[in-house]
Amino acid sequence: MSTALDIVLAYYEAWTCRDLHRAMTYIAADVICDAPAGRLEGVEAYRDFLTPFVRILKSSTLLAAYGDDEKALIMYDAETIPVPSAPGAECVTVRDGRIVHSRFLFDRAPFEAARRQAA
Amino acid sequence: MSTALDIVLAYYEAWTCRDLHRAMTYIAADVICDAPAGRLEGVEAYRDFLTPFVRILKSSTLLAAYGDDEKALIMYDAETIPVPSAPGAECVTVRDGRIVHSRFLFDRAPFEAARRQAA
Repeated sequence: MSTALDIVLAYYEAWTCRDLHRAMTYIAADVICDAPAGRLEGVEAYRDFLTPFVRILKSSTLLAAYGDDEKALIMYDAETIPVPSAPGAECVTVRDGRIVHSRFLFDRAPFEAARRQAA
Repeated sequence: MSTALDIVLAYYEAWTCRDLHRAMTYIAADVICDAPAGRLEGVEAYRDFLTPFVRILKSSTLLAAYGDDEKALIMYDAETIPVPSAPGAECVTVRDGRIVHSRFLFDRAPFEAARRQAA
């Protein structure tokens, strides 16, 4: 059986390759994601959240990844088009091979600044 | 010998009790901290960064903590005076019982919004 760490690393590897379809295979239908802007409920909301991020992603470096059977925690530094260094951290709970809960953390400030500058 | 996880948990326990003096005993003199606003170098810069945060801190809940001998990764949800839910994540490298490097992550957006509202 795959551990939570195996699942989150496979999910991470998929979205960093901009393979949204494969990334979404690790997300449970009834996923709850607590993101900086608020709570997302369900796989469709999660896809709508991940899609624009994957579009602006250039590359990502994994800084650390740890976990046990049920829970995992990763941190990475994503290089995106508007923000050259956009670190993120995700604390996920996995059940039956899929992410059922995610606490998603990144700094929105540089993205807001880039948006203001573009406007 | 204490692992990186032991050290980061002792450090976390100290600052969440607002014991800045004790928290700083886990920080190396030549610490490098990559925080959202940029790089901090040295223990004095780190203290100047932590001091105002500890002042506005009400409580904190540990969400996850993992690590090995050299490195640890934690995520918590801090309750602060301006921002009721301010999650943070820290990826630390430990040498000789002290944090020598920290990648510090939190969302600055709600703090900036609170500052704008107060102004």
